[in-house]
Amino acid sequence: MEEDKAAAPKNYQEYLMLQRLLKCQVLQSAEAGKAVHDEHLFIITHQAYELWFKQMLFEIDSVRDTFASPSMNESRMLNVINRLQRVSLILKLLVDQFVILETMTPLDFLEFRQHLSTASGFQSLQFRLIENKLGVKQENRVKYNQQHYMKVFSDEESVKMLMESVEQPSLLLLLEKWLERTPGLQRHDFRFWQAFEIAVGRWLDETIYQPYIEETDPKIKETLMAEYQKQKDSFDTILDPIKYNTFIERGERRLSHKAFQGALLISLYRDEPRFHQPFQVLTLLMDIDSLMTKWRYNHVMMVQRMIGSKVGTGGSSGYHYLRSTISDRYKVFLDLFNLSTYVIPREYIPPLTMSMKRTLSTLFTEAESESGIEDQSSSLESSDQSTEEASNAMFTT
Amino acid sequence: MEEDKAAAPKNYQEYLMLQRLLKCQVLQSAEAGKAVHDEHLFIITHQAYELWFKQMLFEIDSVRDTFASPSMNESRMLNVINRLQRVSLILKLLVDQFVILETMTPLDFLEFRQHLSTASGFQSLQFRLIENKLGVKQENRVKYNQQHYMKVFSDEESVKMLMESVEQPSLLLLLEKWLERTPGLQRHDFRFWQAFEIAVGRWLDETIYQPYIEETDPKIKETLMAEYQKQKDSFDTILDPIKYNTFIERGERRLSHKAFQGALLISLYRDEPRFHQPFQVLTLLMDIDSLMTKWRYNHVMMVQRMIGSKVGTGGSSGYHYLRSTISDRYKVFLDLFNLSTYVIPREYIPPLTMSMKRTLSTLFTEAESESGIEDQSSSLESSDQSTEEASNAMFTT
Amino acid sequence: MEEDKAAAPKNYQEYLMLQRLLKCQVLQSAEAGKAVHDEHLFIITHQAYELWFKQMLFEIDSVRDTFASPSMNESRMLNVINRLQRVSLILKLLVDQFVILETMTPLDFLEFRQHLSTASGFQSLQFRLIENKLGVKQENRVKYNQQHYMKVFSDEESVKMLMESVEQPSLLLLLEKWLERTPGLQRHDFRFWQAFEIAVGRWLDETIYQPYIEETDPKIKETLMAEYQKQKDSFDTILDPIKYNTFIERGERRLSHKAFQGALLISLYRDEPRFHQPFQVLTLLMDIDSLMTKWRYNHVMMVQRMIGSKVGTGGSSGYHYLRSTISDRYKVFLDLFNLSTYVIPREYIPPLTMSMKRTLSTLFTEAESESGIEDQSSSLESSDQSTEEASNAMFTT
Amino acid sequence: MEEDKAAAPKNYQEYLMLQRLLKCQVLQSAEAGKAVHDEHLFIITHQAYELWFKQMLFEIDSVRDTFASPSMNESRMLNVINRLQRVSLILKLLVDQFVILETMTPLDFLEFRQHLSTASGFQSLQFRLIENKLGVKQENRVKYNQQHYMKVFSDEESVKMLMESVEQPSLLLLLEKWLERTPGLQRHDFRFWQAFEIAVGRWLDETIYQPYIEETDPKIKETLMAEYQKQKDSFDTILDPIKYNTFIERGERRLSHKAFQGALLISLYRDEPRFHQPFQVLTLLMDIDSLMTKWRYNHVMMVQRMIGSKVGTGGSSGYHYLRSTISDRYKVFLDLFNLSTYVIPREYIPPLTMSMKRTLSTLFTEAESESGIEDQSSSLESSDQSTEEASNAMFTT
Repeated sequence: MEEDKAAAPKNYQEYLMLQRLLKCQVLQSAEAGKAVHDEHLFIITHQAYELWFKQMLFEIDSVRDTFASPSMNESRMLNVINRLQRVSLILKLLVDQFVILETMTPLDFLEFRQHLSTASGFQSLQFRLIENKLGVKQENRVKYNQQHYMKVFSDEESVKMLMESVEQPSLLLLLEKWLERTPGLQRHDFRFWQAFEIAVGRWLDETIYQPYIEETDPKIKETLMAEYQKQKDSFDTILDPIKYNTFIERGERRLSHKAFQGALLISLYRDEPRFHQPFQVLTLLMDIDSLMTKWRYNHVMMVQRMIGSKVGTGGSSGYHYLRSTISDRYKVFLDLFNLSTYVIPREYIPPLTMSMKRTLSTLFTEAESESGIEDQSSSLESSDQSTEEASNAMFTT
Repeated sequence: MEEDKAAAPKNYQEYLMLQRLLKCQVLQSAEAGKAVHDEHLFIITHQAYELWFKQMLFEIDSVRDTFASPSMNESRMLNVINRLQRVSLILKLLVDQFVILETMTPLDFLEFRQHLSTASGFQSLQFRLIENKLGVKQENRVKYNQQHYMKVFSDEESVKMLMESVEQPSLLLLLEKWLERTPGLQRHDFRFWQAFEIAVGRWLDETIYQPYIEETDPKIKETLMAEYQKQKDSFDTILDPIKYNTFIERGERRLSHKAFQGALLISLYRDEPRFHQPFQVLTLLMDIDSLMTKWRYNHVMMVQRMIGSKVGTGGSSGYHYLRSTISDRYKVFLDLFNLSTYVIPREYIPPLTMSMKRTLSTLFTEAESESGIEDQSSSLESSDQSTEEASNAMFTT
Repeated sequence: MEEDKAAAPKNYQEYLMLQRLLKCQVLQSAEAGKAVHDEHLFIITHQAYELWFKQMLFEIDSVRDTFASPSMNESRMLNVINRLQRVSLILKLLVDQFVILETMTPLDFLEFRQHLSTASGFQSLQFRLIENKLGVKQENRVKYNQQHYMKVFSDEESVKMLMESVEQPSLLLLLEKWLERTPGLQRHDFRFWQAFEIAVGRWLDETIYQPYIEETDPKIKETLMAEYQKQKDSFDTILDPIKYNTFIERGERRLSHKAFQGALLISLYRDEPRFHQPFQVLTLLMDIDSLMTKWRYNHVMMVQRMIGSKVGTGGSSGYHYLRSTISDRYKVFLDLFNLSTYVIPREYIPPLTMSMKRTLSTLFTEAESESGIEDQSSSLESSDQSTEEASNAMFTT
Repeated sequence: MEEDKAAAPKNYQEYLMLQRLLKCQVLQSAEAGKAVHDEHLFIITHQAYELWFKQMLFEIDSVRDTFASPSMNESRMLNVINRLQRVSLILKLLVDQFVILETMTPLDFLEFRQHLSTASGFQSLQFRLIENKLGVKQENRVKYNQQHYMKVFSDEESVKMLMESVEQPSLLLLLEKWLERTPGLQRHDFRFWQAFEIAVGRWLDETIYQPYIEETDPKIKETLMAEYQKQKDSFDTILDPIKYNTFIERGERRLSHKAFQGALLISLYRDEPRFHQPFQVLTLLMDIDSLMTKWRYNHVMMVQRMIGSKVGTGGSSGYHYLRSTISDRYKVFLDLFNLSTYVIPREYIPPLTMSMKRTLSTLFTEAESESGIEDQSSSLESSDQSTEEASNAMFTT
């Protein structure tokens, strides 16, 4: 306790509070009279997971704060990208970390397993917080021993933290609000969704329907019609708002229709400067989701190796419960993965209007402004450099 | 052609046949008039996979040859371990390799996707060979477009190679035969299976049945009885040969009952010198199986990102087909993973008889023989060290 | 040959030209009468390296083209970042790949080493091209057997490619030109370099010189003065153009003074939207450089393990030559690493002028322009949507 | 405190002492009034390193105990291999972990760097213990600020632990003693070293000296003679005990001459069953050494990126000091790497005598003994199973 509040740390050991940290490894097998070598590894591995979970929460919270802030603007994007990247790198490490624990064998594990009593990874508070803060939906969770996951937490502080993690806006929700504000979603001069619908129609018509019309072989004709119908039905699930909402109600889609449109808009026009970083954000969120699933998967494989279909500590039927969490129900940013279903070839993507192009271009506005507001600075540069490097040509030759 | 048969290569470039190798990247988009940048990555990635698949086949074949050889003996074990380790390291690399292809986006892929025509990863001959040679059962394979996987191969050579890969003994089959020969499975002085059955009974009795008897709370009593019954049923599936075979018939177990016993024997007594390397082999086979599944899983995730639920090239409904191959049906060494279900705590494992101990010990036999055959050599050493550290103590102090 | 020009490929195997690709593995030991198992791994590993080298060259060339293009502008940045990231991921894979070849032992290698004749990794054309295209300076290269590295290439095509790679602008050179155009380097209202020099002076004064003045203990006083002098000398090497150029002449710095200033400007003000992506580019170039060095280092370690200090094939004294390439001489973007030496604490960084802030902000100009130049589009938006999505509020709440 | 001694933990959180562990992250920047976001990452990363260092020490100590035990014998080899493998996997993780910290930038670091005061990684007690317990020689250490590395540790416990780590036998020393006992090093019927010397002579004679004699071109003749002399000199450094010891005195070799011979014996005859596991041990020790060096290297690269050539916290001239630790001086098992210099082609390796072959074969003795000592058990088996599983055919067909 004094350690915390004491004067500034004098050295590495004090700064990292190693005296404390390195005393948190108490082998229960040793307490019970006979230390089992591999319990040490078991403890260290889980503690390393929990340390990194804490870091992940710290980064996720900071990204959520940024998205939630009323002053959130493009100047924060580098920061957001950097921190999401960090979360992704941590997860990659945690996925790789399983091989170390896998050097423990079932026989080794059995030797100290009884000392774990009812302790179980299912009781990791921080893992639940990560899931909730990312946006795993409560209704999508698989029950464990017919029990709600929250039931295993009884101390007041844990319960409070969990409740807050559910009540506060998740990263998914904040993303949704942000995507709904995607510039260009609703403009009289560029109505993206209408233009996209027309483009899809033209694409299906030219690449499937026309060939169908011209086909003479009845069998191929039939195949083409089936293909056409299938594609049309698929696109209808996003073009028709009522159908779209059916999927939301079934829990198979998470983002509002408007947010989904924003995400698609960014994906299709990601080469416009204004969308560069939003596109990087969407990619990183998919990376994180993928890695979460890979973590779950590696975890299941490890558990299968270690205890087979034995009942887990804490009474869970370990393997089968964990296996069930690798479904799309636990994929938070599922809609982003599904975007690829609705991407159409570049030549069919509706061209931007000049005004829309300008809005999405950092460069163009600069060029515009040169003849206006910024003329004092830019004219100087121009004169200095005899126009060969006008301010609109920043970073350009 | 001359390149192949020509004089010995003069340099690096000739040795690696780079002139040829580096001309195998023909962008179909370029052939069609407009090169798409990312098609280059797509080709290189797949070719890198195929190169490593060739190496995997080469190693798997050599390990199969070793196991199949009538002279297979312990002197080959280091070799087998080394090559299985190599396969495992290659697979790890291939699992990690997906992140590179994931830098390609759905929009990029769409730009050259039509040029792939009906080409599809489903047509990778080498991947099928790997599966067959490891031991994926034909009856466990999931159909693709209602089609048998072999149907996509039409050229004579491919069909021949595939047929052979099915007909020749797989690594799984060879492992089975080898495990059936595990020393000590059937000896009059140490009847492993009977001893194991008794040990299981004693364990269940002492840790669950006795507590059940002594319990007074009816609710806990009931739980204990349920637990006891569950464990008993679980062990019965391996102790009762008839039940065991039911699982085989259902395809949920792959190894013969005798081979399964051998694997369990090795796992329980892995600390005996004779079992050190067999235990390493079993571990490596699980590693390889795990990594195959992780490869499949990463593949699915990549496909979902790239094409969503679109129909794959080659007409497969890509994502869903691939997803279905991540089940235990495709796990070749499933029985080895399940061993952990039947491992019992060390204190219950039947002690070895002296004679069995001797059989499993490389050291002991040495000691024995000292007084006989090897006396010339060993006596020298012995005299040097006044017998307290005779040659049986080699590597010992 | 016909394979290349033939009709479009019908399937996976034809598309990837596997018939050809998978016949490029000719074991010289087999040609000489007795196949050595591990030569297969040796060939595959090197071919996998060369395949990925080809991909790296393809990406590096495309990034160089972008930087070299007179129309290079910010709309290309996502693309540049994506491709540099790809190069970085490939290099990470290649660094990790060494563990596979390390499963081969010195004894295995010796068995086919004589068949390599004079072939040597030193003869990898593509690796030399990568070095040159990134910007390894010819004068910094270490000699090999007292021989210029180009001497080992004799065929016309290789020589031509090498010469071109030296003569064409390297990525380093293109980066230099681009950094020299960093917006804000020369403006009458924000003279970065003067402001930076003043800031450095103030920092050193407040944190070292003033404490020195106030110190009474002569020993500490002396230490502080030494520290002050050391820091001042260090900053002088970049503040004084003449000293700066001395380092360039000695080959210890690569970027022109102006480009160096641009890089520092970006690093210090990376939170300004305009600098987000340039900062990502600088980071990725360091990543690539780090990974190149790690590749070299892992290569050396592997060679040491395989042949010790034996003479390499091709006559090189392998280990020692390779070891010498891990110095800073081969680090292309060395100046970017050294930037950290000259970063000063945030509170000392000169504040941006309003005009400079505007230039570096994509948002601000937008906001500004709303009341002016862009009013046609933006006022429309405003009126259409009754302020719910004012153009200055893009992505903001 | 009560936490330690209290009743058995009831759940995951208590078992892992998370209440304590997750309170060890105190940001000094926050204590000083303004939390700097990235300090959290800085602390977590270093704590994760320290947790894993503790695990490494735990494993290294257990391996040292095994080697030091008078009853050390072959039955412990699987255990030793498993634990060395674990150390190797942990190190691999720690090498990969640097990329996470590298997402922090110099500017971020500068913001909290002053709060570190004199804390420095140089003060990591556990890292020094790892070095000492592996066997880094005190006299090979590079000085830091002209200071002995031990000087930075002042608390009694740390000093005591450090002293013990120096005084107790290191893994290197224990390996040496173990290698000196390699079976077959001194036997009247197989004098390895004499046989090896003859073999080397024959090899050099046949492959270099004879060609030299027959050569007529004076220039080639000269080259051949130079090559012959060079090789001879190289082998003399191990064949001539006096020369060998010169290298030991210079600190360029670490193992006694006899231990070196043992290591070479194992390497050349690794295919003999008795040497399988010793060979795996030697390989793992090299893996660990390689990874230690890669850790050092990645550390240096990270430091260069973060602080350039600035003076480190704790007053060390960080980059240059760290850079100097990547030399062979810090490679503990250097001699094992150098073995490859002295490996000769398989056809020149002296054949084993029958008796030696028997000593190194687990199988052969078994076969031998079958007709003798073990006949009770083995003959029974034979008769029981009518020769289908003769005991000498264990695991063989």
